Amino acid sequence: MLVSMGHISPAVYSVLSEFGYVQEEDVYLEFRQAGSSFTGHVERCVPGVEWNTGNLGQGLSAGAGMALGLQLKKNPARVAVLMGDGEQQKGQIAEARRFAVKYELSNLFGIVDRNHLQIGGSTNQVMPQAIRADYIASRWNVLYVEDGNDFEQVFQALKKVYRHEVDDPTVPSVIVARTVMGKGVSFMENKAKYHGSTLKDDEAARALEELGVENPIPSLREKRSTRKIFQSHFCAPQAYPRIEVGEPRTYGPDERTDNRSAYGAVLEDLARLNNMGEIPKVLGFSCDLEGSVKMQGFHRLSENAFFEAGIQEHHCATLAGAVSKEDFAAFFSTFGVFGVCETYNQHRLNDINETQLKLVCTHVGLDVGEDGQTHQCIDYLSLLQNLYGFSLFMPADPNQTDRVIRHIAENPGNFFVGMGRSKMSPILDEAGAPAFGGAYKFVPGKADWLRRGTHGAILSYGSVLHYAVQAREELAQKHGLQLAVLNFASIKPLDAAAIAEAAKTGLLITAEDHHVDTGLGARVSNVLTDEGTPCRLIRLGVKKYGLSGKPSDLYHSEGIDTEGIVKAVLNAKEKRWLKI
Amino acid sequence: MLVSMGHISPAVYSVLSEFGYVQEEDVYLEFRQAGSSFTGHVERCVPGVEWNTGNLGQGLSAGAGMALGLQLKKNPARVAVLMGDGEQQKGQIAEARRFAVKYELSNLFGIVDRNHLQIGGSTNQVMPQAIRADYIASRWNVLYVEDGNDFEQVFQALKKVYRHEVDDPTVPSVIVARTVMGKGVSFMENKAKYHGSTLKDDEAARALEELGVENPIPSLREKRSTRKIFQSHFCAPQAYPRIEVGEPRTYGPDERTDNRSAYGAVLEDLARLNNMGEIPKVLGFSCDLEGSVKMQGFHRLSENAFFEAGIQEHHCATLAGAVSKEDFAAFFSTFGVFGVCETYNQHRLNDINETQLKLVCTHVGLDVGEDGQTHQCIDYLSLLQNLYGFSLFMPADPNQTDRVIRHIAENPGNFFVGMGRSKMSPILDEAGAPAFGGAYKFVPGKADWLRRGTHGAILSYGSVLHYAVQAREELAQKHGLQLAVLNFASIKPLDAAAIAEAAKTGLLITAEDHHVDTGLGARVSNVLTDEGTPCRLIRLGVKKYGLSGKPSDLYHSEGIDTEGIVKAVLNAKEKRWLKI
Repeated sequence: MLVSMGHISPAVYSVLSEFGYVQEEDVYLEFRQAGSSFTGHVERCVPGVEWNTGNLGQGLSAGAGMALGLQLKKNPARVAVLMGDGEQQKGQIAEARRFAVKYELSNLFGIVDRNHLQIGGSTNQVMPQAIRADYIASRWNVLYVEDGNDFEQVFQALKKVYRHEVDDPTVPSVIVARTVMGKGVSFMENKAKYHGSTLKDDEAARALEELGVENPIPSLREKRSTRKIFQSHFCAPQAYPRIEVGEPRTYGPDERTDNRSAYGAVLEDLARLNNMGEIPKVLGFSCDLEGSVKMQGFHRLSENAFFEAGIQEHHCATLAGAVSKEDFAAFFSTFGVFGVCETYNQHRLNDINETQLKLVCTHVGLDVGEDGQTHQCIDYLSLLQNLYGFSLFMPADPNQTDRVIRHIAENPGNFFVGMGRSKMSPILDEAGAPAFGGAYKFVPGKADWLRRGTHGAILSYGSVLHYAVQAREELAQKHGLQLAVLNFASIKPLDAAAIAEAAKTGLLITAEDHHVDTGLGARVSNVLTDEGTPCRLIRLGVKKYGLSGKPSDLYHSEGIDTEGIVKAVLNAKEKRWLKI
Repeated sequence: MLVSMGHISPAVYSVLSEFGYVQEEDVYLEFRQAGSSFTGHVERCVPGVEWNTGNLGQGLSAGAGMALGLQLKKNPARVAVLMGDGEQQKGQIAEARRFAVKYELSNLFGIVDRNHLQIGGSTNQVMPQAIRADYIASRWNVLYVEDGNDFEQVFQALKKVYRHEVDDPTVPSVIVARTVMGKGVSFMENKAKYHGSTLKDDEAARALEELGVENPIPSLREKRSTRKIFQSHFCAPQAYPRIEVGEPRTYGPDERTDNRSAYGAVLEDLARLNNMGEIPKVLGFSCDLEGSVKMQGFHRLSENAFFEAGIQEHHCATLAGAVSKEDFAAFFSTFGVFGVCETYNQHRLNDINETQLKLVCTHVGLDVGEDGQTHQCIDYLSLLQNLYGFSLFMPADPNQTDRVIRHIAENPGNFFVGMGRSKMSPILDEAGAPAFGGAYKFVPGKADWLRRGTHGAILSYGSVLHYAVQAREELAQKHGLQLAVLNFASIKPLDAAAIAEAAKTGLLITAEDHHVDTGLGARVSNVLTDEGTPCRLIRLGVKKYGLSGKPSDLYHSEGIDTEGIVKAVLNAKEKRWLKI
């Protein structure tokens, strides 16, 4: 059971107390008090609540995720999603409907509280909608309850749904129940103003009298004023399945490939190691970009564990988040602009729900090239930095990608891994061997010292890193300057100690395929000022919406290629910022 | 005409060259070359293109915005939106459909290129959808063209639409045209792989031969390799209507109100001054929160200029952006979490389209209080900082809100104005008069020195500012410390000179109702490290998802109230960071 319109929390707590999940008085005394479980919108810290809600329109997607998880686990349980009628306006619900039919989620059903009112007034005035027609057009079974305040009528409809006595038992059903808001209180019935406003004391007394209920307010009010929070806001940590991640692959110095192909190769390993039994453990989700994000191999090996959600990113983001709480390692992959910019708020709700999502986005940055500005995601770190529970990783090359992906498959939590589009040769260490191959192990929160140097340090990651290494070599060979190069594959957590050590050189240059003010440069700036470290910082990055052209041309125009980095260091030298 | 599936750019350029808008050879030689107008997805720098597209599913909303603008201007022109069939899966299209029926946008029509293919393969395999049933359920007129490759059949359908020979001439129409992708080239017909991949030379030669067209490739290839960009990427600036903004109101020291009420009052002034003629100049858009965002007064005064979009934020964000280019001052208001977090990517596309949107979001920050974490938008500055064309303003009190809103009404460009929920007394200057009343004028990029001091400076904005002022007084009275207080109502552009001057005290404290790592604190940090300014910086802000409770309790738990700020300064004193 999932309550999509989380603002009906008092009703939810009331039912839960009726069934002994919570104590009625606790609710009265702690409702919407800072620190209590009994929050304004329902949250999982209340026993019986399975998904935090509040942002309307996401509930059906989350319910679809739970239903999908149960089906995969051969668990016969059903998933009910209680929804408002106003929220049916949200487009994400149309997406969820389509997905649920495609994947025959007959263990999912919805109940729409059709009271014809939303906060702004009559649903017909705010936004006319044909709820039943929409569900029918999507091929759902639709059951209509004429008097949704009559429990017997609702019960009969529920019985039909539970017994699959519907037109098409292979697809989900929705019960549209015509209700009267404020039922039984003469002055509240069908009044939109009571959607979100509380009653005055005398109104409440009158309402309770009409309902034939004793008025507990006077006695509760005093108790509430002195109450210390007892039902404190705490959610038990989530279990996570044991995932076999196998042995990392190493790409040799001459093996030119892209990070997303390395990602695809690890997914194939994961499928082989975890999905050959009856119940797969690693799941893949994509939005019409299976080929571009390199999930075909996984799909081929593990047909029952791959889900194509179509061009429906909002739904897919929520769905994958919800599935990730059902004992699966769930990988959701699409381009950065769809997986981050378009679906930020869905991931925010995922994070609030402490999902365990593996969000792996390809085609981030100007590196997407010719597709142009609408497709160039240059704010991925900036946006996701706000999600407290997410770790953010940007592997530098196929070897590091391999190890980062195995790391996130093995570990619980929400992860973002970003990668560009272009092919590249592996990053090499000073001896000419792959820097991230062989026994190298990825450790979150640890930067990689690729080169040492005393005249400054270049801090980079992802697609720009190899330009940073080239710039370092050119500065050494042509200008006699020895700069360190650090790779920040782990952006969050961030290696503040490495930044402090690099800052001892007196000059840091950050170079990134990201908005210049909001990516690694900004994080490094925070670290320097937090510690009061005296060190010059030059931030190189993207300073305007990109053009449509070859990535190398775009990098050049933004000064984040070899030439741009060299130039920045020589400028700094001219300003006498280098300790020489 | 708006092409929603922007990736068919070669087809668009080809039609435009046929009609003389562009030179055919320019397209051949510059297509997808960095710096050219002929980008991978269509952009407005090409004559004849009216809306940059690329992110699927937003085109119909933009078209609805244009159609609405034309209707308001009594312009009889029609708006056509060409769409792919795959993109019909996006939920935003369902939202746009509903809005277009509610507002009887009969001057809008869609054409769906129903080729049954999307990048991942057959639309039926990727995501089964009933396109005509969906439009019918939404009450659109639906015309089906059996052979969409037959121009005569398409023309007949268009004629019907243009003549309003449809079932219901008061609502929009859609032409669903069954087409064959790759029509006329035997080996390309109905092949999904050609959705996004180019032909090899010999394949291209064969295709052109089958089409009976001379092969220009060999001769063009050499020309292209030496071509300098001639059709450079440039869009002419947008006109903006003259808006009368009247005289600012001043709220006296004892007038306690919230910023959103001050916003509502200005909107009423704007309605009176600009909307009394036949064609209104100031428009208001809301998503089922008209009352909360205080747009009722505007709505009442200016019935024909207010639009209620329902719980359909994605659609409304795009719609309002598109309308703002039709010679209107368009205000879109909802809560921060819906107007920013949920719709970031819509505003990103708006910004790329150089719209002139006034995005005014209320209920930002923990200040939303009891609604809890899903409703607490603590990342508004972080997200919008990435949009190069947006200015970001956070007025401190009702007086400053009044002046900021008049400023954005008068001026072209994309603006975000954020405000919390709580009531407050006006901020006072040292003489006890309203600091932002009377003759005070809001200037973007200029911080306000509310108090002077030598022991440090507190930098704040919005709902936290009055705590900053109180903390300053307490530090002066109880601890003999004289701190400056600066108000940053203008976050972008940011007043770097004021920060530099404040930094001369040696200690800056930023205090904000925003994620601690990504708001004003991060911007100030950037300024300090950009200039290499030696100064301690303490960043106070939100360090975890919020609780559900009174704003003052939440501010206290995050250390951003008076007590928290005082404590931070005293800590700094203990660490001997203060120059005393």
